[in-house]
Amino acid sequence: MTGIEVLAVEGVPEVNPGDDLPSVLFEAAGGSLRSGDILVVTHKIVSKAEGRIVDLRSVEPSFFAEDFASRFDKDPRHVEVVLRESHRIVKMDRGVIISETRHGFVCANAGVDASNVPGKDTVCLLPEAPDDSASRIHAHLREKIGVEIPTIISDSFGRPWRNGITNVAIGVAGMNPLADYRGESDPHGYPLEASVLATADELAAASELAMNKTDGVPAAIIRGYPHDPGPGSARELVMPPERDLFR
Amino acid sequence: MTGIEVLAVEGVPEVNPGDDLPSVLFEAAGGSLRSGDILVVTHKIVSKAEGRIVDLRSVEPSFFAEDFASRFDKDPRHVEVVLRESHRIVKMDRGVIISETRHGFVCANAGVDASNVPGKDTVCLLPEAPDDSASRIHAHLREKIGVEIPTIISDSFGRPWRNGITNVAIGVAGMNPLADYRGESDPHGYPLEASVLATADELAAASELAMNKTDGVPAAIIRGYPHDPGPGSARELVMPPERDLFR
Repeated sequence: MTGIEVLAVEGVPEVNPGDDLPSVLFEAAGGSLRSGDILVVTHKIVSKAEGRIVDLRSVEPSFFAEDFASRFDKDPRHVEVVLRESHRIVKMDRGVIISETRHGFVCANAGVDASNVPGKDTVCLLPEAPDDSASRIHAHLREKIGVEIPTIISDSFGRPWRNGITNVAIGVAGMNPLADYRGESDPHGYPLEASVLATADELAAASELAMNKTDGVPAAIIRGYPHDPGPGSARELVMPPERDLFR
Repeated sequence: MTGIEVLAVEGVPEVNPGDDLPSVLFEAAGGSLRSGDILVVTHKIVSKAEGRIVDLRSVEPSFFAEDFASRFDKDPRHVEVVLRESHRIVKMDRGVIISETRHGFVCANAGVDASNVPGKDTVCLLPEAPDDSASRIHAHLREKIGVEIPTIISDSFGRPWRNGITNVAIGVAGMNPLADYRGESDPHGYPLEASVLATADELAAASELAMNKTDGVPAAIIRGYPHDPGPGSARELVMPPERDLFR
Protein backbone atom coordinates (compact mmCIF):
# COMPACT_ATOMS: atom_id res chain seq x y z
CA MET A 1 0.00 0.00 0.00
CA THR A 2 1.27 3.48 -0.77
CA GLY A 3 1.28 6.08 1.95
CA ILE A 4 3.31 8.20 4.26
CA GLU A 5 5.18 7.70 7.50
CA VAL A 6 5.35 10.05 10.46
CA LEU A 7 8.42 9.31 12.57
CA ALA A 8 9.20 10.66 16.03
CA VAL A 9 12.61 12.33 16.35
CA GLU A 10 13.86 11.01 19.66
CA GLY A 11 16.96 11.96 21.61
CA VAL A 12 16.64 15.72 21.31
CA PRO A 13 18.21 17.04 24.53
CA GLU A 14 16.73 19.82 26.67
CA VAL A 15 17.19 23.05 24.68
CA ASN A 16 18.38 26.23 26.38
CA PRO A 17 18.63 29.87 25.30
CA GLY A 18 21.54 30.37 22.96
CA ASP A 19 21.68 26.74 21.82
CA ASP A 20 22.35 26.20 18.12
CA LEU A 21 19.06 24.47 17.32
CA PRO A 22 19.82 23.60 13.68
CA SER A 23 22.90 21.67 14.91
CA VAL A 24 20.92 20.04 17.72
CA LEU A 25 18.32 18.84 15.19
CA PHE A 26 21.00 17.66 12.77
CA GLU A 27 22.59 15.64 15.59
CA ALA A 28 19.26 14.05 16.49
CA ALA A 29 17.73 13.53 13.04
CA GLY A 30 20.48 14.00 10.46
CA GLY A 31 21.26 10.31 10.20
CA SER A 32 17.62 9.46 9.51
CA LEU A 33 16.73 12.20 7.02
CA ARG A 34 16.44 11.38 3.33
CA SER A 35 15.45 13.21 0.20
CA GLY A 36 11.68 13.72 0.17
CA ASP A 37 11.39 13.99 3.96
CA ILE A 38 9.81 16.94 5.72
CA LEU A 39 10.87 17.96 9.23
CA VAL A 40 8.28 19.35 11.64
CA VAL A 41 9.63 21.03 14.79
CA THR A 42 7.43 22.21 17.68
CA HIS A 43 7.88 25.91 18.29
CA LYS A 44 8.65 25.42 21.95
CA ILE A 45 12.26 24.32 21.37
CA VAL A 46 12.68 27.04 18.73
CA SER A 47 11.48 29.69 21.17
CA LYS A 48 13.71 28.37 23.92
CA ALA A 49 16.81 28.29 21.72
CA GLU A 50 16.06 31.82 20.56
CA GLY A 51 15.66 33.06 24.13
CA ARG A 52 11.96 33.82 23.69
CA ILE A 53 11.23 33.07 27.33
CA VAL A 54 10.21 35.61 29.94
CA ASP A 55 10.75 35.51 33.69
CA LEU A 56 7.44 36.75 35.07
CA ARG A 57 9.25 38.16 38.13
CA SER A 58 10.62 40.87 35.83
CA VAL A 59 7.17 41.85 34.48
CA GLU A 60 5.24 44.87 35.79
CA PRO A 61 1.56 44.40 34.87
CA SER A 62 -0.39 47.36 33.53
CA PHE A 63 -3.64 48.50 35.12
CA PHE A 64 -5.56 46.82 32.26
CA ALA A 65 -3.75 43.51 32.81
CA GLU A 66 -4.34 43.68 36.58
CA ASP A 67 -8.03 44.39 36.07
CA PHE A 68 -8.63 41.52 33.61
CA ALA A 69 -6.53 39.09 35.64
CA SER A 70 -8.33 39.87 38.90
CA ARG A 71 -11.74 39.28 37.38
CA PHE A 72 -10.82 35.81 36.14
CA ASP A 73 -8.26 34.65 38.72
CA LYS A 74 -5.33 34.83 36.29
CA ASP A 75 -1.71 35.83 36.88
CA PRO A 76 -1.60 39.55 35.95
CA ARG A 77 2.04 39.23 34.85
CA HIS A 78 1.07 36.47 32.40
CA VAL A 79 -1.79 38.63 31.08
CA GLU A 80 0.65 41.52 30.67
CA VAL A 81 2.99 39.39 28.53
CA VAL A 82 0.02 38.23 26.42
CA LEU A 83 -0.98 41.87 25.81
CA ARG A 84 2.60 42.80 24.88
CA GLU A 85 2.68 39.95 22.34
CA SER A 86 -0.71 40.93 20.86
CA HIS A 87 -1.08 43.10 17.83
CA ARG A 88 -4.86 43.19 18.19
CA ILE A 89 -7.36 41.63 20.61
CA VAL A 90 -9.92 39.56 18.69
CA LYS A 91 -12.00 38.36 21.67
CA MET A 92 -11.51 38.84 25.39
CA ASP A 93 -13.94 37.16 27.71
CA ARG A 94 -14.26 34.54 30.45
CA GLY A 95 -10.54 34.78 31.20
CA VAL A 96 -9.58 33.97 27.62
CA ILE A 97 -7.69 36.38 25.37
CA ILE A 98 -7.78 35.53 21.67
CA SER A 99 -5.40 37.81 19.88
CA GLU A 100 -3.77 38.41 16.59
CA THR A 101 -0.01 38.21 16.91
CA ARG A 102 2.40 40.40 15.00
CA HIS A 103 2.82 37.44 12.58
CA GLY A 104 -0.91 37.61 11.78
CA PHE A 105 -1.81 34.39 13.61
CA VAL A 106 -5.00 34.39 15.65
CA CYS A 107 -4.70 32.23 18.74
CA ALA A 108 -5.31 32.05 22.48
CA ASN A 109 -2.99 34.15 24.64
CA ALA A 110 -0.97 35.30 21.61
CA GLY A 111 0.81 31.96 21.78
CA VAL A 112 2.26 32.70 25.24
CA ASP A 113 2.29 29.57 27.32
CA ALA A 114 3.76 28.16 30.48
CA SER A 115 3.97 24.42 29.82
CA ASN A 116 7.17 22.66 28.78
CA VAL A 117 9.29 25.52 30.11
CA PRO A 118 11.48 25.08 33.19
CA GLY A 119 10.54 27.22 36.21
CA LYS A 120 7.06 28.08 37.39
CA ASP A 121 7.57 31.82 36.83
CA THR A 122 8.65 31.37 33.23
CA VAL A 123 6.54 31.65 30.07
CA CYS A 124 7.42 30.98 26.48
CA LEU A 125 6.62 33.31 23.56
CA LEU A 126 6.26 32.42 19.89
CA PRO A 127 9.47 32.77 17.88
CA GLU A 128 10.00 36.32 16.62
CA ALA A 129 10.04 35.19 12.97
CA PRO A 130 9.15 31.49 12.68
CA ASP A 131 9.70 31.44 8.89
CA ASP A 132 13.28 32.55 9.49
CA SER A 133 13.67 29.93 12.21
CA ALA A 134 12.49 27.28 9.72
CA SER A 135 14.83 28.66 7.05
CA ARG A 136 17.85 28.41 9.32
CA ILE A 137 17.11 24.73 10.06
CA HIS A 138 16.41 24.07 6.36
CA ALA A 139 19.67 25.75 5.28
CA HIS A 140 21.74 23.94 7.92
CA LEU A 141 20.36 20.54 6.91
CA ARG A 142 21.01 21.28 3.22
CA GLU A 143 24.61 22.17 4.09
CA LYS A 144 25.16 19.13 6.28
CA ILE A 145 23.42 16.37 4.30
CA GLY A 146 23.19 17.93 0.83
CA VAL A 147 19.44 17.39 0.61
CA GLU A 148 16.51 19.81 0.71
CA ILE A 149 14.42 19.04 3.79
CA PRO A 150 11.36 21.31 3.92
CA THR A 151 10.95 22.45 7.51
CA ILE A 152 7.79 23.41 9.39
CA ILE A 153 7.59 25.05 12.83
CA SER A 154 4.36 24.00 14.56
CA ASP A 155 2.21 25.15 17.44
CA SER A 156 -1.15 23.89 18.70
CA PHE A 157 -4.00 26.37 18.30
CA GLY A 158 -7.65 26.27 19.27
CA ARG A 159 -10.30 26.91 16.66
CA PRO A 160 -13.67 28.63 16.73
CA TRP A 161 -16.66 26.27 16.99
CA ARG A 162 -14.60 23.12 17.42
CA ASN A 163 -13.44 21.58 20.65
CA GLY A 164 -9.78 20.79 21.25
CA ILE A 165 -6.56 22.14 19.84
CA THR A 166 -4.74 20.90 16.74
CA ASN A 167 -1.21 21.44 15.51
CA VAL A 168 -0.78 24.02 12.75
CA ALA A 169 2.21 25.45 10.88
CA ILE A 170 3.52 28.81 12.11
CA GLY A 171 6.79 28.76 10.16
CA VAL A 172 7.59 27.18 6.79
CA ALA A 173 10.71 26.87 4.64
CA GLY A 174 11.36 24.85 1.48
CA MET A 175 7.81 23.98 0.43
CA ASN A 176 4.58 25.63 -0.57
CA PRO A 177 2.28 25.44 2.44
CA LEU A 178 -0.87 25.39 0.29
CA ALA A 179 -1.82 22.92 -2.46
CA ASP A 180 -4.02 24.65 -4.98
CA TYR A 181 -6.24 22.27 -6.93
CA ARG A 182 -8.39 24.99 -8.47
CA GLY A 183 -8.58 24.44 -12.21
CA GLU A 184 -7.99 20.71 -11.83
CA SER A 185 -10.81 18.23 -12.19
CA ASP A 186 -12.14 15.39 -10.13
CA PRO A 187 -12.38 11.86 -11.58
CA HIS A 188 -15.78 12.86 -13.06
CA GLY A 189 -14.22 15.78 -14.92
CA TYR A 190 -15.99 18.26 -12.67
CA PRO A 191 -13.81 21.24 -11.63
CA LEU A 192 -12.70 21.03 -8.02
CA GLU A 193 -14.14 23.87 -5.95
CA ALA A 194 -12.92 25.32 -2.67
CA SER A 195 -9.85 23.28 -3.22
CA VAL A 196 -6.92 25.11 -1.73
CA LEU A 197 -5.62 22.70 0.86
CA ALA A 198 -3.57 23.91 3.81
CA THR A 199 -1.19 20.98 3.53
CA ALA A 200 1.41 22.50 5.88
CA ASP A 201 -1.26 22.58 8.57
CA GLU A 202 -2.18 18.96 7.79
CA LEU A 203 1.51 17.99 8.00
CA ALA A 204 1.78 19.79 11.35
CA ALA A 205 -1.34 17.96 12.57
CA ALA A 206 0.04 14.61 11.40
CA SER A 207 3.35 15.26 13.17
CA GLU A 208 1.55 15.69 16.47
CA LEU A 209 0.25 12.12 16.24
CA ALA A 210 3.82 10.80 16.45
CA MET A 211 4.86 13.05 19.32
CA ASN A 212 3.43 12.68 22.78
CA LYS A 213 2.84 15.86 24.69
CA THR A 214 3.98 14.30 27.93
CA ASP A 215 7.08 12.58 26.52
CA GLY A 216 8.81 15.66 25.21
CA VAL A 217 9.34 14.51 21.60
CA PRO A 218 9.77 17.91 19.93
CA ALA A 219 10.13 16.99 16.24
CA ALA A 220 8.93 14.50 13.65
CA ILE A 221 9.92 13.45 10.16
CA ILE A 222 7.21 13.00 7.52
CA ARG A 223 8.29 10.59 4.82
CA GLY A 224 6.61 9.96 1.47
CA TYR A 225 4.44 13.04 1.15
CA PRO A 226 4.78 14.53 -2.36
CA HIS A 227 5.26 18.15 -1.28
CA ASP A 228 5.52 21.06 -3.67
CA PRO A 229 9.02 22.58 -3.35
CA GLY A 230 9.29 26.35 -3.08
CA PRO A 231 10.62 28.97 -0.71
CA GLY A 232 7.41 28.85 1.36
CA SER A 233 6.16 31.01 4.19
CA ALA A 234 3.55 30.57 6.88
CA ARG A 235 2.27 34.03 5.89
CA GLU A 236 0.44 32.21 3.08
CA LEU A 237 -1.55 30.37 5.75
CA VAL A 238 -2.90 33.64 7.13
CA MET A 239 -6.22 34.58 5.53
CA PRO A 240 -5.76 37.88 3.69
CA PRO A 241 -7.82 40.58 5.52
CA GLU A 242 -9.81 41.41 2.37
CA ARG A 243 -11.02 37.80 2.10
CA ASP A 244 -11.52 37.25 5.81
CA LEU A 245 -15.22 37.08 6.70
CA PHE A 246 -14.31 36.85 10.38
CA ARG A 247 -12.47 40.13 10.74
CA MET B 1 12.31 5.11 14.69
CA THR B 2 8.85 4.86 16.18
CA GLY B 3 5.96 6.50 14.42
CA ILE B 4 2.79 6.02 12.48
CA GLU B 5 1.88 5.12 8.92
CA VAL B 6 -0.91 6.61 6.82
CA LEU B 7 -1.85 4.21 4.02
CA ALA B 8 -4.07 4.96 1.01
CA VAL B 9 -6.95 2.52 0.52
CA GLU B 10 -6.90 1.94 -3.22
CA GLY B 11 -9.33 0.03 -5.36
CA VAL B 12 -12.54 1.44 -3.93
CA PRO B 13 -14.98 1.39 -6.85
CA GLU B 14 -17.36 4.23 -7.73
CA VAL B 15 -20.02 4.26 -5.02
CA ASN B 16 -23.71 4.70 -5.91
CA PRO B 17 -26.85 5.32 -3.88
CA GLY B 18 -27.93 2.16 -2.11
CA ASP B 19 -24.50 0.54 -2.16
CA ASP B 20 -23.53 -1.31 0.99
CA LEU B 21 -20.55 0.87 1.90
CA PRO B 22 -19.33 -1.17 4.89
CA SER B 23 -19.03 -4.19 2.55
CA VAL B 24 -17.36 -2.11 -0.16
CA LEU B 25 -14.78 -0.89 2.38
CA PHE B 26 -14.26 -4.40 3.76
CA GLU B 27 -13.60 -5.65 0.21
CA ALA B 28 -11.07 -2.89 -0.43
CA ALA B 29 -9.33 -2.67 2.94
CA GLY B 30 -10.29 -5.76 4.93
CA GLY B 31 -7.21 -7.73 3.93
CA SER B 32 -4.91 -4.92 5.05
CA LEU B 33 -6.52 -3.98 8.35
CA ARG B 34 -4.94 -5.08 11.62
CA SER B 35 -5.58 -4.52 15.29
CA GLY B 36 -4.58 -0.97 16.23
CA ASP B 37 -5.46 0.49 12.84
CA ILE B 38 -7.87 3.38 12.38
CA LEU B 39 -9.90 3.78 9.19
CA VAL B 40 -10.64 7.27 7.85
CA VAL B 41 -13.31 7.52 5.15
CA THR B 42 -14.11 10.72 3.24
CA HIS B 43 -17.74 11.69 3.68
CA LYS B 44 -18.32 11.89 -0.08
CA ILE B 45 -18.62 8.14 -0.57
CA VAL B 46 -20.68 7.84 2.61
CA SER B 47 -23.11 10.48 1.37
CA LYS B 48 -23.33 8.86 -2.06
CA ALA B 49 -24.01 5.39 -0.65
CA GLU B 50 -26.67 6.87 1.64
CA GLY B 51 -28.33 8.67 -1.25
CA ARG B 52 -27.51 12.10 0.14
CA ILE B 53 -27.29 13.61 -3.33
CA VAL B 54 -29.70 16.10 -4.83
CA ASP B 55 -30.59 16.69 -8.46
CA LEU B 56 -30.71 20.47 -8.72
CA ARG B 57 -33.30 20.20 -11.52
CA SER B 58 -35.78 19.14 -8.85
CA VAL B 59 -35.09 22.16 -6.62
CA GLU B 60 -37.35 25.23 -6.54
CA PRO B 61 -35.32 28.11 -5.09
CA SER B 62 -36.96 30.43 -2.57
CA PHE B 63 -37.05 34.20 -3.08
CA PHE B 64 -34.24 34.56 -0.52
CA ALA B 65 -32.04 32.03 -2.36
CA GLU B 66 -32.72 33.72 -5.72
CA ASP B 67 -31.83 37.12 -4.31
CA PHE B 68 -28.55 36.04 -2.72
CA ALA B 69 -27.55 33.96 -5.76
CA SER B 70 -28.25 36.78 -8.22
CA ARG B 71 -26.06 39.23 -6.31
CA PHE B 72 -23.04 36.91 -6.33
CA ASP B 73 -23.50 35.01 -9.58
CA LYS B 74 -24.33 31.72 -7.85
CA ASP B 75 -26.73 28.95 -8.84
CA PRO B 76 -29.95 29.75 -6.88
CA ARG B 77 -30.82 26.05 -6.70
CA HIS B 78 -27.47 25.32 -5.02
CA VAL B 79 -28.06 28.20 -2.59
CA GLU B 80 -31.52 26.80 -1.86
CA VAL B 81 -30.05 23.40 -0.95
CA VAL B 82 -27.46 25.09 1.28
CA LEU B 83 -30.22 26.96 3.11
CA ARG B 84 -32.25 23.76 3.55
CA GLU B 85 -29.19 22.03 5.06
CA SER B 86 -28.49 24.97 7.40
CA HIS B 87 -29.68 25.09 10.97
CA ARG B 88 -28.37 28.66 11.42
CA ILE B 89 -26.49 31.10 9.20
CA VAL B 90 -23.26 32.19 10.90
CA LYS B 91 -21.99 34.55 8.17
CA MET B 92 -23.34 35.35 4.75
CA ASP B 93 -21.35 37.69 2.56
CA ARG B 94 -19.43 37.95 -0.71
CA GLY B 95 -21.22 34.90 -2.07
CA VAL B 96 -20.15 32.73 0.83
CA ILE B 97 -22.58 31.13 3.27
CA ILE B 98 -21.06 29.86 6.50
CA SER B 99 -23.66 27.92 8.35
CA GLU B 100 -24.18 25.67 11.29
CA THR B 101 -25.50 22.31 10.17
CA ARG B 102 -28.00 20.26 12.12
CA HIS B 103 -25.04 18.23 13.40
CA GLY B 104 -23.58 21.41 14.96
CA PHE B 105 -20.71 21.74 12.48
CA VAL B 106 -19.90 25.22 11.23
CA CYS B 107 -18.69 25.16 7.63
CA ALA B 108 -19.04 26.75 4.22
CA ASN B 109 -22.26 25.96 2.35
CA ALA B 110 -23.47 23.63 5.11
CA GLY B 111 -21.16 21.02 3.61
CA VAL B 112 -23.09 20.94 0.31
CA ASP B 113 -20.68 20.52 -2.57
CA ALA B 114 -20.63 19.68 -6.23
CA SER B 115 -17.21 18.09 -6.76
CA ASN B 116 -16.64 14.34 -6.95
CA VAL B 117 -20.31 13.76 -7.78
CA PRO B 118 -21.38 12.56 -11.23
CA GLY B 119 -23.54 14.97 -13.22
CA LYS B 120 -23.21 18.73 -13.37
CA ASP B 121 -26.67 19.28 -11.85
CA THR B 122 -25.95 17.12 -8.82
CA VAL B 123 -24.77 18.18 -5.39
CA CYS B 124 -23.77 16.12 -2.39
CA LEU B 125 -24.96 16.73 1.18
CA LEU B 126 -23.30 15.70 4.41
CA PRO B 127 -24.44 12.32 5.75
CA GLU B 128 -27.58 12.60 7.87
CA ALA B 129 -25.86 11.13 10.94
CA PRO B 130 -22.12 10.67 10.31
CA ASP B 131 -21.53 9.05 13.71
CA ASP B 132 -24.03 6.35 12.77
CA SER B 133 -22.36 5.95 9.37
CA ALA B 134 -19.02 5.46 11.16
CA SER B 135 -20.63 3.00 13.59
CA ARG B 136 -22.02 0.86 10.77
CA ILE B 137 -18.58 0.56 9.16
CA HIS B 138 -16.97 -0.09 12.55
CA ALA B 139 -19.53 -2.82 13.40
CA HIS B 140 -19.21 -4.48 9.99
CA LEU B 141 -15.41 -4.62 10.20
CA ARG B 142 -15.59 -6.05 13.72
CA GLU B 143 -17.95 -8.75 12.49
CA LYS B 144 -15.86 -9.57 9.41
CA ILE B 145 -12.32 -9.46 10.79
CA GLY B 146 -12.94 -9.78 14.53
CA VAL B 147 -10.97 -6.65 15.34
CA GLU B 148 -12.02 -3.20 16.57
CA ILE B 149 -11.14 -0.67 13.87
CA PRO B 150 -12.05 2.85 15.04
CA THR B 151 -13.63 4.65 12.10
CA ILE B 152 -13.65 8.34 11.26
CA ILE B 153 -15.75 10.06 8.58
CA SER B 154 -13.91 13.15 7.29
CA ASP B 155 -14.69 16.30 5.37
CA SER B 156 -12.52 19.29 4.50
CA PHE B 157 -13.58 22.53 6.19
CA GLY B 158 -12.28 26.06 5.98
CA ARG B 159 -11.29 27.88 9.14
CA PRO B 160 -11.58 31.51 10.25
CA TRP B 161 -8.35 33.52 9.91
CA ARG B 162 -6.39 30.77 8.18
CA ASN B 163 -6.11 30.19 4.49
CA GLY B 164 -6.91 26.83 2.95
CA ILE B 165 -9.10 23.95 4.01
CA THR B 166 -8.06 20.99 6.16
CA ASN B 167 -9.65 17.61 6.77
CA VAL B 168 -11.58 17.25 10.01
CA ALA B 169 -13.64 14.47 11.58
CA ILE B 170 -17.43 14.72 11.19
CA GLY B 171 -18.24 11.18 12.31
CA VAL B 172 -16.46 8.97 14.84
CA ALA B 173 -16.94 5.43 16.13
CA GLY B 174 -14.74 3.26 18.34
CA MET B 175 -12.39 5.88 19.79
CA ASN B 176 -12.41 9.02 21.87
CA PRO B 177 -11.97 11.92 19.46
CA LEU B 178 -10.29 14.10 22.09
CA ALA B 179 -7.14 13.36 24.11
CA ASP B 180 -7.33 15.16 27.41
CA TYR B 181 -3.95 15.82 28.97
CA ARG B 182 -5.28 18.14 31.65
CA GLY B 183 -3.94 17.07 35.02
CA GLU B 184 -0.90 15.45 33.44
CA SER B 185 2.48 17.11 33.62
CA ASP B 186 5.16 18.03 31.12
CA PRO B 187 8.71 16.66 31.50
CA HIS B 188 9.41 19.61 33.85
CA GLY B 189 6.56 18.57 36.13
CA TYR B 190 4.54 21.62 35.13
CA PRO B 191 0.81 20.94 34.59
CA LEU B 192 -0.15 20.92 30.92
CA GLU B 193 -2.58 23.73 30.12
CA ALA B 194 -5.01 24.09 27.25
CA SER B 195 -4.23 20.50 26.52
CA VAL B 196 -7.31 18.87 25.11
CA LEU B 197 -6.16 17.69 21.71
CA ALA B 198 -8.63 17.10 18.90
CA THR B 199 -6.85 13.95 17.83
CA ALA B 200 -9.68 12.77 15.54
CA ASP B 201 -9.26 15.99 13.58
CA GLU B 202 -5.49 15.43 13.44
CA LEU B 203 -6.08 11.86 12.22
CA ALA B 204 -8.47 13.18 9.56
CA ALA B 205 -5.87 15.76 8.50
CA ALA B 206 -3.16 13.12 8.34
CA SER B 207 -5.36 10.86 6.21
CA GLU B 208 -5.72 13.60 3.59
CA LEU B 209 -1.96 13.54 3.03
CA ALA B 210 -2.18 9.97 1.74
CA MET B 211 -5.19 10.60 -0.48
CA ASN B 212 -5.00 12.77 -3.54
CA LYS B 213 -8.00 14.92 -4.26
CA THR B 214 -7.70 14.32 -8.01
CA ASP B 215 -7.08 10.55 -7.79
CA GLY B 216 -10.24 9.65 -5.99
CA VAL B 217 -8.71 7.73 -3.09
CA PRO B 218 -11.58 7.91 -0.60
CA ALA B 219 -10.15 6.20 2.49
CA ALA B 220 -6.93 5.73 4.43
CA ILE B 221 -5.66 3.49 7.19
CA ILE B 222 -3.69 4.99 10.06
CA ARG B 223 -1.40 2.45 11.68
CA GLY B 224 0.52 2.79 14.93
CA TYR B 225 -1.38 5.62 16.57
CA PRO B 226 -2.13 4.77 20.22
CA HIS B 227 -5.78 5.80 20.18
CA ASP B 228 -8.04 5.80 23.21
CA PRO B 229 -10.83 3.23 22.66
CA GLY B 230 -14.39 4.26 23.46
CA PRO B 231 -17.73 4.61 21.75
CA GLY B 232 -16.79 8.07 20.46
CA SER B 233 -18.83 10.71 18.69
CA ALA B 234 -17.96 13.72 16.56
CA ARG B 235 -20.38 15.67 18.75
CA GLU B 236 -17.49 15.91 21.23
CA LEU B 237 -15.60 17.92 18.60
CA VAL B 238 -18.31 20.58 18.54
CA MET B 239 -17.56 23.40 20.98
CA PRO B 240 -20.33 23.49 23.59
CA PRO B 241 -22.31 26.74 23.08
CA GLU B 242 -21.67 27.88 26.66
CA ARG B 243 -17.90 27.72 26.10
CA ASP B 244 -17.96 29.11 22.56
CA LEU B 245 -16.55 32.65 22.41
CA PHE B 246 -17.44 32.81 18.72
CA ARG B 247 -21.15 32.31 18.97
